Amino acid sequence: MNLLKSIKDGQIPPRIKKLALCEQIEESELADKILSGHIVVPANNCRKNTILPVGIGAGLSTKINANIGTSTDINELDLELEKLKVATDAGADTIMDLSTGGHISKIRQQILKQCNVPLGTVPIYQVTVLAKQTTGSLIGYTKEDIFKVITEQAKEGVDFITVHCGVNRQTLQALIEQKRVMDVVSRGASFTIGWMIENDAENPLFNDFEQLLEIAKLYDVTLSLGDGMRPGCLADATDRPQIEELSVLGQLVKQAQEYGVQVMVEGPGHVPLNQIEANVKLQKSLCHNAPFYVLGPLVTDIAPGYDHITSAIGGALAASYGADYLCYVTPKEHLGLPGVQDVQDGVIASKIAAHAADIVKQVPGAWHKDKEMAKARKDLNWQKQIELSIDPKTTKKAYLDKKPAEEDACTMCGQYCAMKLVSDYLGDKITCH
Amino acid sequence: MNLLKSIKDGQIPPRIKKLALCEQIEESELADKILSGHIVVPANNCRKNTILPVGIGAGLSTKINANIGTSTDINELDLELEKLKVATDAGADTIMDLSTGGHISKIRQQILKQCNVPLGTVPIYQVTVLAKQTTGSLIGYTKEDIFKVITEQAKEGVDFITVHCGVNRQTLQALIEQKRVMDVVSRGASFTIGWMIENDAENPLFNDFEQLLEIAKLYDVTLSLGDGMRPGCLADATDRPQIEELSVLGQLVKQAQEYGVQVMVEGPGHVPLNQIEANVKLQKSLCHNAPFYVLGPLVTDIAPGYDHITSAIGGALAASYGADYLCYVTPKEHLGLPGVQDVQDGVIASKIAAHAADIVKQVPGAWHKDKEMAKARKDLNWQKQIELSIDPKTTKKAYLDKKPAEEDACTMCGQYCAMKLVSDYLGDKITCH
Repeated sequence: MNLLKSIKDGQIPPRIKKLALCEQIEESELADKILSGHIVVPANNCRKNTILPVGIGAGLSTKINANIGTSTDINELDLELEKLKVATDAGADTIMDLSTGGHISKIRQQILKQCNVPLGTVPIYQVTVLAKQTTGSLIGYTKEDIFKVITEQAKEGVDFITVHCGVNRQTLQALIEQKRVMDVVSRGASFTIGWMIENDAENPLFNDFEQLLEIAKLYDVTLSLGDGMRPGCLADATDRPQIEELSVLGQLVKQAQEYGVQVMVEGPGHVPLNQIEANVKLQKSLCHNAPFYVLGPLVTDIAPGYDHITSAIGGALAASYGADYLCYVTPKEHLGLPGVQDVQDGVIASKIAAHAADIVKQVPGAWHKDKEMAKARKDLNWQKQIELSIDPKTTKKAYLDKKPAEEDACTMCGQYCAMKLVSDYLGDKITCH
Repeated sequence: MNLLKSIKDGQIPPRIKKLALCEQIEESELADKILSGHIVVPANNCRKNTILPVGIGAGLSTKINANIGTSTDINELDLELEKLKVATDAGADTIMDLSTGGHISKIRQQILKQCNVPLGTVPIYQVTVLAKQTTGSLIGYTKEDIFKVITEQAKEGVDFITVHCGVNRQTLQALIEQKRVMDVVSRGASFTIGWMIENDAENPLFNDFEQLLEIAKLYDVTLSLGDGMRPGCLADATDRPQIEELSVLGQLVKQAQEYGVQVMVEGPGHVPLNQIEANVKLQKSLCHNAPFYVLGPLVTDIAPGYDHITSAIGGALAASYGADYLCYVTPKEHLGLPGVQDVQDGVIASKIAAHAADIVKQVPGAWHKDKEMAKARKDLNWQKQIELSIDPKTTKKAYLDKKPAEEDACTMCGQYCAMKLVSDYLGDKITCH
C-alpha cells in the first residue's frame, strides 16, 4: 500500500479521513494537496503499531518534531524512552531518533515500538556508526552500505528519513569557494563530504536518487531532503552554497513527486530575523510548494543555554511566512545531549512558536483557544486558565505555588486587580461576553 | 539642570559624551536626536547616586526594562533588592519599581539608593495605595493627590514615570463602544477609569497635562506615556480604543517635546505576529518618532508559565521593526509576582529579543558578537564560547554538567562532530578565518 497510489486510485484511506476531521479541512482538499505534494502524511506501510495520522503542509496546523537518541557519550535506552514519552506527552507531532551511541538498531526498534507518532531517522548515522565499527573510519562505507541501511530501516517501519541528497559536487564546489565562517554544521553532510573527497566520487544519494525513490515508494517512506549546506551561524545565512543546494533539492522534489514518493524539504538553521521571510518564500518557490521543515531558525548565535528561545523567535516567524514543520531546539543545543527537562522545554517552546504562527495563518481553531483563554482571564477563572494552557501542569504549579490572599486575584496585583476594578465600575457594559 | 536645555544651550554633558562612545554614535548626532525627541536619556537631576547613562531611541541598541516591586501579598524589601541586583547583573538597562505592598515610599527610596541604572515608577500606584489607606477606597484620591505624589517621587530622584494621560473621555467612550473581550488590563488605567466615573470628571493627567510637564521639566523626569487601553488579549489588539489612545498620546508627545520635556510612548501588550509591524509603524508615525516602549508584545494568550518566550517572539519582531525599548515579561506573568529566578529568566529572554533585533537594525557591534561566537564554535574553543554567551554562567554550567569524553567535542555529537570531520577533510581550505 502506498498513500499516493491509493488516492490516485480514488481511495481515501480512513486515517486520511480522520486527519481531515482533526484539521477541519475537507477530505477532498486534503487528498488533492497530498497528491500535488503540498502536504505529506508520513506513515510507513510496514509500521507494526498504529500511529496517529500527522499531516504536514499547506493549510494545516504547523507541526513540531522532537529529536531524541543516544550519543557516544550518553547511551541509555531507558533515558531515550523517557524522552520519547515526555516529548509526545508535551505535544510533539513527530519524533526523530538520531542515535549514534550503543546498539542503534535495537534502540530504534524499541523506540519504534513505543512511538505512536511518525518516527524519522537519519540513516547515514547508522551507516557511519557501522563503518566505524567495521573499518575504524567513519566514512569507510560503500554506496551499497547506504542503501542497505535505508532498506533495513524502511522494513522496520521508519516513517520518514532525512537524506542529504543535495550535497553534491556542485554544491561542494560552491561551499569551497564561499569561504564560510563555519563551513558545514550538518553531521550528515560532513560524513558525505568526507566520503566524496576520500572516494573522489559523487554522493550516491544524489547520483542514484532513483534507487532511493524505489525503496521509499515500496515502503511508503517519506523523504525529508536534508539541508547539508545549512548555515551554522548568522554570517553564513542565505549564501550561495545554501541556495544552490535548495535549488538542487527543488529538482529532486519534482522527481520524487513524479515518481510517486512523498517528499519534504529541510531548511536552516541560523538566520537573521530579516532573512527568514525570503528563506521561506524561496523554498516554496524553488521546491514546488513541498512542505518546509525548518531547524530553528535561530535568530542569534550568542545565546547557548537559551536556544529554545532563539529558535522559538525564528520558528514563529518562519511558520507565519509559510514554513510547515518546526524541528524543536532544546536549551542544550550547542552544549550537549539534551536531558528530559530539556526535551520538555524544547517541545513547549516549539509549540508556542507553532501556535503563534497558526493564529496568523488562520489555521482553523487556533484563534479560538486564545479567545477562550482571554475570557477565562477576564472571569478570573483559574481552573479554566489551567485547562486552556499550552502546559497545564506548569500553569497549575505556578499558580498554586503562590496562592494569593484573595482567591480570584493573583499575587502580582492582589487587591489592585485591573480586571476586578473595571468590572466594578463598568460592569458588563463594556465586555462582549 | 535640564538635559534638553543644556543641549539647546550648546552644552553636551559628559554623560552624553560617554553614551555616544558606548553606542558608537557621533556626539552631535546623539545630541540632535535627543533634541528632536527621537532619543530620550532618562536621568532625574535630583538623583543622589550616579547612574549609567542609558539612551533609548532611534539608532541606539534596543534597551530592556525589568519590573520589580512588592505586592499586597508578597512584601519583602530584601527580596526586591535581590531582584534589582539579579536584573541589573543579567543586563537590564532600566528598572521599574511597581511596588503596591508595604511602605512603598521607603521601599522605593531603598531601591533608588542601590539602583545604578535609570529607575521608573507608576506614581498612580502610590496614589491609590494612599487613598486606600486613608479613605478605604482605591480611588478615594483627589487631583491634588496625584500631583503631590508625582512631585514627591520627582524630588526623590525617580528618572522616568508612567502616566496614563491617554485615558480620557474620548478613549473611554471608544472603549465602552468597542465591547472588548478583556476591556482594560492596565492597572493604572483601571484606577483612572474608576476615578473618572466616580467623579464624573476628565482624567487630570490629560486635562492638566501642562502641570505634569512643569514638574517633569523642573526635575528632568522623562515621561513614559502609558497605554492604558492596550489590548490584554489577541482578540482586542489594534482596535479603536487602542489606536485612538495612541493618537491622543501623539498629540501629548508633541506638546511635551515643545515644552522641553523628554517623552516616550508605551505600547502593547498582546498582539498577533502579523499586526506587530503595523503597531510599530503607527506609533512612530502618530507619535512624532518618540521612542517606543513595548510591553511584550505577547504573540499568544495560551502560554502562561512561558510568557517570557511569547514576549521574546513579539519583542524581537517589534524591535526589528523599530521599537526601541522592551519591557521584560517573566515566566510568572498572568500567574503571580515574579521571584528571583523569574526575573533572571525574563531579563535574558528580553536581551535575546533585543539582540536579535539589533542585528537586523544594524546596531554597531551587534553582528560582531555573533561572528565571534561562530568562530569560537568552529574552533571548538569552549572557553571563548562561554565568555561570548549572553549568560556565561548558564553556558558554563550546562557545558560542565556533561563534560564530554573528547574534550573539544560535546556530548551531543561526541565522535561524530561535523566541525571536526569537515576540518579533517577540507582543512583550512574552506573557512574564512
